[in-house]
Amino acid sequence: MPELRRDPVTGRWVIINTDNPRQPSEYKVEPQPKKSVKCAFCYGNEKMTPPEITAYGVEKREKNSPGWTLRVVPNKFPAMQIEGNLDKAGIGLFDMMKGVGAHEVIIETPDHNSEIPDRDEKQIRELLWSYRDRSLDLRKDKRFKYILIFKNYGFSAGASLDHPHSQLIAMPFVPKRVMGEIEGSVKYFGYRERCVYCDMIRQEAEEKDLTVSENKHFLSFTPFASRFPYETCIIPKEHFSDFTNINDEIIGDLAYILKDTLTRIRKVLKDPSYNYILHSAPLDDPERDDFHWHIEIMPRLTKVAGFEWGTGFYINPTPPELAAKTLREA
Amino acid sequence: MPELRRDPVTGRWVIINTDNPRQPSEYKVEPQPKKSVKCAFCYGNEKMTPPEITAYGVEKREKNSPGWTLRVVPNKFPAMQIEGNLDKAGIGLFDMMKGVGAHEVIIETPDHNSEIPDRDEKQIRELLWSYRDRSLDLRKDKRFKYILIFKNYGFSAGASLDHPHSQLIAMPFVPKRVMGEIEGSVKYFGYRERCVYCDMIRQEAEEKDLTVSENKHFLSFTPFASRFPYETCIIPKEHFSDFTNINDEIIGDLAYILKDTLTRIRKVLKDPSYNYILHSAPLDDPERDDFHWHIEIMPRLTKVAGFEWGTGFYINPTPPELAAKTLREA
Repeated sequence: MPELRRDPVTGRWVIINTDNPRQPSEYKVEPQPKKSVKCAFCYGNEKMTPPEITAYGVEKREKNSPGWTLRVVPNKFPAMQIEGNLDKAGIGLFDMMKGVGAHEVIIETPDHNSEIPDRDEKQIRELLWSYRDRSLDLRKDKRFKYILIFKNYGFSAGASLDHPHSQLIAMPFVPKRVMGEIEGSVKYFGYRERCVYCDMIRQEAEEKDLTVSENKHFLSFTPFASRFPYETCIIPKEHFSDFTNINDEIIGDLAYILKDTLTRIRKVLKDPSYNYILHSAPLDDPERDDFHWHIEIMPRLTKVAGFEWGTGFYINPTPPELAAKTLREA
Repeated sequence: MPELRRDPVTGRWVIINTDNPRQPSEYKVEPQPKKSVKCAFCYGNEKMTPPEITAYGVEKREKNSPGWTLRVVPNKFPAMQIEGNLDKAGIGLFDMMKGVGAHEVIIETPDHNSEIPDRDEKQIRELLWSYRDRSLDLRKDKRFKYILIFKNYGFSAGASLDHPHSQLIAMPFVPKRVMGEIEGSVKYFGYRERCVYCDMIRQEAEEKDLTVSENKHFLSFTPFASRFPYETCIIPKEHFSDFTNINDEIIGDLAYILKDTLTRIRKVLKDPSYNYILHSAPLDDPERDDFHWHIEIMPRLTKVAGFEWGTGFYINPTPPELAAKTLREA
């Protein structure tokens, strides 16, 4: 009989197929395209992107020219635009405002063919520093209430370019899904006076069923009520609500566990497309006892269909314990 | 500048690309597979499905044999199972229960190759009657709180079989997404004392910008804050919260507008995959002034990516007014 599991943070129910758990080889993974073409994100084509916001690497370098190790540019086709006011308005029943926000692209490496599992940790630390630096810079703009950092890898995950890149969107409101996590964790804190994420980490330290890997500062695990097969969460073991409160030592551990987790996913699932997103606390109140920043990695192995769209629930064909075991032993 | 629009029912913000609206031909639609193979849902293979629950067509016919015009069977790989108790339990932080529910497949026609736009209206009326009949039968089981009817058409919409079929899941709770609609419409009713859906229909009767087509009893329109390009909603013009309160005349109009809308979508978008879902009021309280049943049709033209997963918001590259105009004039 399938099992219904409730996510302790959001309250979302997920249907887990515990009777006939689907094995990694039973997922049809579309092969990633052969990467070889030079693109707008490669050396020598810097003029093809909007002028860069910042770049890491050699110090004495002309802007928008080669030599960088990581480069941040505005998105050429932004979901929101940086200039202007919100201009809130209504038409009868309907409310609208202008799409004011920042939409940046982080070109993670000049190497068109080097994904996170292929890179050395120094390069991944640099990527994580860029997430932090851009977040700190953009939060000076008081129009913004939230900054989302995310990465789409592969066509099935919605990536339209295959040169390794992450994205960052700063927006004038706290998004619905983050509000859902905050509301859930506030409610939990209200009667337990403890952070729900810290409690999950403590419980997992005893059970060990959901652990993919861990090190001094981080735990990588498959959530008890995972929406998607092989969904994995990376979370700091110590309580931190604001991602930007990271230091050299913590970033070192994060770079290691991010590479390790993505390498396991690539190996077990034959290089699947994935999305990852970083949820940190809203900018208005970044230091809070009831929220805990984390990264959600979602391999794209199943299609979201009518049932999911109609209910908001998910059907997960692989129990998280089995996913964790397979990833752990890879 | 992109426009942010708020859905008046759920409060969800959507980003609409109003500057460079994407045209129908700019969406990459995966062609549907050639349909020719005989499958478990075709005549003569009735023994390959679980024993039928009901069938329409000839009266004197042996069960599970040819001669039917529509056939309802239990899903061979059900998301939930009909027998047993919920057995709610907890492990530390985590809550779970058994996946008790009904998961039925409605084989819409014996013709492997006849999708809704290909059928005559009599056949579509029969399909709609089956939605009603199965709903009325299943709601006698008091364990169930909600019944969702949905259809996945095409691989990109998550359909694993290409013989025309719909699905029905009866479940022991009201799903999150329906609760979201109910909470929003209750809130609206609280200060306006009117149904928010009725108000949308009234506003559209004046504006006409979002209308795809209409007849005496139904309006087919693209919602103001559509999440997906060419998303279309079919709704009864008169206030009804419970789908099962339909009669011959209403079903005739619904069959006509469902076929008409899906035919327009097929024509304009070159036979895209789609999901549709039917949202009726929860079973505990089906007759209510603040909710209005409707069908949401979602062509699958874009990938849901990191931004959507991280925020719960959607980016829609085609303004609903443009989608409505294109579909209306098709």
